[in-house]
Amino acid sequence: MPAPPSRSVDVTLVSEWNDGHPRPFQDSLVGEEPLEIRVGGEPLSVTMRTPGNDFELAAGFLYTEGLIQLREQILSLGAAETGVEPGSRGNVVEAQLDPEISLQLERTRRNFFSSSSCGICGKASIDAVRLRTLQAPNADFRVSAATLYSLPDILRGSQAIFGRTGGLHAAALFSASGEMTVAREDVGRHNAVDKAIGWALLENRVPLRDSILLVSGRGGFEIIQKAIVAGIPMVASVSAPSSLAVRLARELRLTLVGFLRDRRFVVYAGEDRILPVG
Amino acid sequence: MPAPPSRSVDVTLVSEWNDGHPRPFQDSLVGEEPLEIRVGGEPLSVTMRTPGNDFELAAGFLYTEGLIQLREQILSLGAAETGVEPGSRGNVVEAQLDPEISLQLERTRRNFFSSSSCGICGKASIDAVRLRTLQAPNADFRVSAATLYSLPDILRGSQAIFGRTGGLHAAALFSASGEMTVAREDVGRHNAVDKAIGWALLENRVPLRDSILLVSGRGGFEIIQKAIVAGIPMVASVSAPSSLAVRLARELRLTLVGFLRDRRFVVYAGEDRILPVG
Repeated sequence: MPAPPSRSVDVTLVSEWNDGHPRPFQDSLVGEEPLEIRVGGEPLSVTMRTPGNDFELAAGFLYTEGLIQLREQILSLGAAETGVEPGSRGNVVEAQLDPEISLQLERTRRNFFSSSSCGICGKASIDAVRLRTLQAPNADFRVSAATLYSLPDILRGSQAIFGRTGGLHAAALFSASGEMTVAREDVGRHNAVDKAIGWALLENRVPLRDSILLVSGRGGFEIIQKAIVAGIPMVASVSAPSSLAVRLARELRLTLVGFLRDRRFVVYAGEDRILPVG
Repeated sequence: MPAPPSRSVDVTLVSEWNDGHPRPFQDSLVGEEPLEIRVGGEPLSVTMRTPGNDFELAAGFLYTEGLIQLREQILSLGAAETGVEPGSRGNVVEAQLDPEISLQLERTRRNFFSSSSCGICGKASIDAVRLRTLQAPNADFRVSAATLYSLPDILRGSQAIFGRTGGLHAAALFSASGEMTVAREDVGRHNAVDKAIGWALLENRVPLRDSILLVSGRGGFEIIQKAIVAGIPMVASVSAPSSLAVRLARELRLTLVGFLRDRRFVVYAGEDRILPVG
């Protein structure tokens, strides 16, 4: 039996139980399939993602994880076949990188299991992000509280799949005046962020010195890390950040906003970038 | 500056903006720190987790990822130091496993980058879980719809941290009659599940042939995979499952319930295990 093709939404017959009794119900499900990212023919990472915008996801992953710093270091992105099953088509992205990057990656790979043991603590995690950061986030960036309040509704209005299935995370980039430049959805929060930032990278818009990143879920350490590496000065989420996310944002001078909903938000770091109303 | 110790909750002074104006506010943040799991002195995995129940997390990870099948294969679990910084204390768990398992792991490690390229598609992902599954989920397990409706409130009542911070995922195990046997919270959904199942493993309660797993978030592929490996016959979530999670549950005969809230739920697989009311 060949595997079904990769899709971003599947429709299936299920059963809805209201007050203890079932009835048939057509439901839309968020697509989820593994994606392998290969560099120079060698597997680098496998992630469970919602099919679609896979080149952006691969480009964003390579960039926010610090493997590349510039658009030009990606020589090509292509869909590869695993060569094992017909159903695997479309689930592998092959990247050709600048030869110098490939060499460096080869060294990292060889040392992976011996080097990852040093520095397993929050401070070391923050220092690792600091090393990958090319410049401090834009200190002159300003956003009014009124603009921040408006962002979640704009994002929700753009979420094609989310409205139908309720099972997706979203990430979007906005200008200081609240214009949305890109929105991406995925079963994985990190993937949604990588797709949005990967889009910007492929469009030669990085570093994102004048952008707000809005995420639909929680603001964890890895989301803040990706934002800082991409030069984004402000991250907002509709839910809570973690302790390490707040420490990272404070130490690297990023503005971190949480619980953004119903004309309320909480500022955890970098409050000087937010302007009061009136 | 030494890193602060690992904690499950941090309190910090932040700023709350209501209707465009700030005021100071004491907030509780969910703790997040990296945890490294080592086997036989070699690093196996690093995950961002909420400190606490780390032995359970390590045991659950080893078990649900298919590295071990029995409690007895874990010879010991201990806290290790990285030897690099003082702050790293408490963020490394060292597991000593049955020598045969360690040997097998060594082989897997050596082949990691060459072997992971075969079979990157949903079908291959499902087949991989099938290979790790020791027996089919309990076909005689039955739960009434009324019991299912009651579970989210019981879990919420037990969530010590979640109530204060809003930033945590929860996972709990229940009996068929709705008694909660364990609940665990974490910044990572997978970690909350690994902690709950790891507790059961360390208590010699696996396979969990008579248990329901309830998760606070979405029912993705990896959650269902962990449940199946642990022998759990029913997974319920308060949100939507993904397409691949539904395919996996249907093929391996697990009961999968989504959108469990307000006397309503949707059954995506294995409906024969649910009894109507009255």
